[in-house]
Amino acid sequence: MALVVTWLGQASFRFDAGERRILVDPFFAEHEARTYPPLPVDEHGTDVDWLLVTHEHIDHLDPYSLREVAARSPDLVIVAPAPLEAMVREAAPDADFTGVHRGDRVELPGAGSAVVVPAVHGRTVADGYPDDPAFVGYVLELEGTSLYHAGDTIVTDAVVAALAPLRVDVALLPVNGRTYYRERDELVGNMGTRDAVALAAEAGATILVPYHWDLFRGNTEWPGRVVDDAVEAEAPLHVLTLRRGVPWAP
Amino acid sequence: MALVVTWLGQASFRFDAGERRILVDPFFAEHEARTYPPLPVDEHGTDVDWLLVTHEHIDHLDPYSLREVAARSPDLVIVAPAPLEAMVREAAPDADFTGVHRGDRVELPGAGSAVVVPAVHGRTVADGYPDDPAFVGYVLELEGTSLYHAGDTIVTDAVVAALAPLRVDVALLPVNGRTYYRERDELVGNMGTRDAVALAAEAGATILVPYHWDLFRGNTEWPGRVVDDAVEAEAPLHVLTLRRGVPWAP
Amino acid sequence: MALVVTWLGQASFRFDAGERRILVDPFFAEHEARTYPPLPVDEHGTDVDWLLVTHEHIDHLDPYSLREVAARSPDLVIVAPAPLEAMVREAAPDADFTGVHRGDRVELPGAGSAVVVPAVHGRTVADGYPDDPAFVGYVLELEGTSLYHAGDTIVTDAVVAALAPLRVDVALLPVNGRTYYRERDELVGNMGTRDAVALAAEAGATILVPYHWDLFRGNTEWPGRVVDDAVEAEAPLHVLTLRRGVPWAP
Repeated sequence: MALVVTWLGQASFRFDAGERRILVDPFFAEHEARTYPPLPVDEHGTDVDWLLVTHEHIDHLDPYSLREVAARSPDLVIVAPAPLEAMVREAAPDADFTGVHRGDRVELPGAGSAVVVPAVHGRTVADGYPDDPAFVGYVLELEGTSLYHAGDTIVTDAVVAALAPLRVDVALLPVNGRTYYRERDELVGNMGTRDAVALAAEAGATILVPYHWDLFRGNTEWPGRVVDDAVEAEAPLHVLTLRRGVPWAP
Repeated sequence: MALVVTWLGQASFRFDAGERRILVDPFFAEHEARTYPPLPVDEHGTDVDWLLVTHEHIDHLDPYSLREVAARSPDLVIVAPAPLEAMVREAAPDADFTGVHRGDRVELPGAGSAVVVPAVHGRTVADGYPDDPAFVGYVLELEGTSLYHAGDTIVTDAVVAALAPLRVDVALLPVNGRTYYRERDELVGNMGTRDAVALAAEAGATILVPYHWDLFRGNTEWPGRVVDDAVEAEAPLHVLTLRRGVPWAP
Repeated sequence: MALVVTWLGQASFRFDAGERRILVDPFFAEHEARTYPPLPVDEHGTDVDWLLVTHEHIDHLDPYSLREVAARSPDLVIVAPAPLEAMVREAAPDADFTGVHRGDRVELPGAGSAVVVPAVHGRTVADGYPDDPAFVGYVLELEGTSLYHAGDTIVTDAVVAALAPLRVDVALLPVNGRTYYRERDELVGNMGTRDAVALAAEAGATILVPYHWDLFRGNTEWPGRVVDDAVEAEAPLHVLTLRRGVPWAP
């Protein structure tokens, strides 16, 4: 069985690899700022083998999702930055937990592996985009395809350096940007559309999939900009704008 | 070997299916209105098995390309609307020619097949977007994937009706639109970005690849608009903006 | 007192010129397809001297608006294409009515004048964008500024020819375009963003104000496309995207 990628909105992805199922940053909970209802957990959150978390924000580490996925997934292992162990265990006490550090390589038997890379974000804007081990991305090797899920992050030398030795075929990147006024509203930022194009190209990806442009009112981006930025930059990659809930086989 | 799709710019595509190579509307010639140089015919135009032509305009039926591809492809068969036989034979006298009509199914042994569908365009604007058998599209079935290459066309009831009984996984569609001022400059139009999204969705495609937005100065479109139109329409498909010359394996 | 222009959304404008007030295509009614509530008639629809109508569609000739504006405007004269007399008199029996034909010049004492120009649209899609005197635009000369309100129209030779002898400083143009799928949904189209830029430039306008991009769900356009099209075309004009309800003094 080949790899199938299903975007679930925002930073949330489902990967079906061989007989295994992996979720990254599922967010099946309702939320007042949502621009669309959550996708059904019964369809996307059952029989999950690994649930990867990139950081503690609600749209990435959602206690409701952890609990509901765990209830539907007898073999679930939750993989998250080690500092988040207490949060994860409180949300899903019965699931196995694997705490990870940047640079770790996690085996996903029957599916592939995940290498843990740094992400530079922050619990709050006041944190100032620190070097904090509680924020990570993952480079997943699944069915021969290497996919970089960046978590939430700006681009820094550390992010670039961590990717340099790794192969990346598909770059899944946040694109909602970082602005003064959004930070004043306590929205910690991410890379914008131009940096996403350049980072994907520098990482050697042939496909860039933008995410984190759609979910929360007041923190969105137009995904078409990624395309026009890639064309302008003559970036040697394809831009794939996924539709939520529709499977894609890379 | 699975299917590999390489966009060569404008309406020009290369398909490598199994051991076979197919080109649609190759345009390797120089042209004063080009916004970028042609891709190298030595790289993309050798050992071609079938060269499909959608209509007679220079960026689709390019005598230079036909001649140069034929010179590099001992087994070449050129497939084109039957009314274009003289033009094709003059350009490439030594290549085999298969004249097709709408509704025909052309076998491509070792690769798959192509069904000929109508396109509504015109030699000149004064033609008024006629029902003319010299303009076609192709629905290619290659390695289990069905790809619709629309040629140059607006959307009409006839175009929609011809696609209705066919399966389409990937819709390759022109998106440069049709305007009064471009028509006044003798540029025959095509569907625009919104119609491309709606046609792809109605055809059941899960991936829309926009083309014909890049080549000729004064007749371009921003491909990001396709993405934003698809998001606005909540179309149940992915939009894939290909980079010229970079292979993509669907 | 100088000229003040207030856009009221869609094709609806308020012009305050000297001591006079003019409305074009007011639409103060509720409607299920609205993307925003109507602006308050008490603020924008009182003491109106002339109410100009471009054609009979509800978002241009709104019986509710005619009645409510008439009730608040003792000196109201409603100016509309002559074929619409019955519709106007039924909506606002007590208001004065001036039926106009293309080519007419209507004096607006104390404010300026209006020249009636053709618009090419249609009651229904099946009408096929006819030459119909019930569809007009207006070139208003107010306080020394010439403003072209196009009504709803595509660009045709007749539209271009009618504007040729007239001075236009500010072009107010619809930009929502015309597509197969919107026409299939019975939405009669207008010029799109590129044609609006080219028409404004050809008319000699130095300012283009796009309208008819915002009101009805399923019939909108992104106004930023007008801006990008003007930049791409190197059009010698400014694009002014007005905010509903915020006065602008040209």
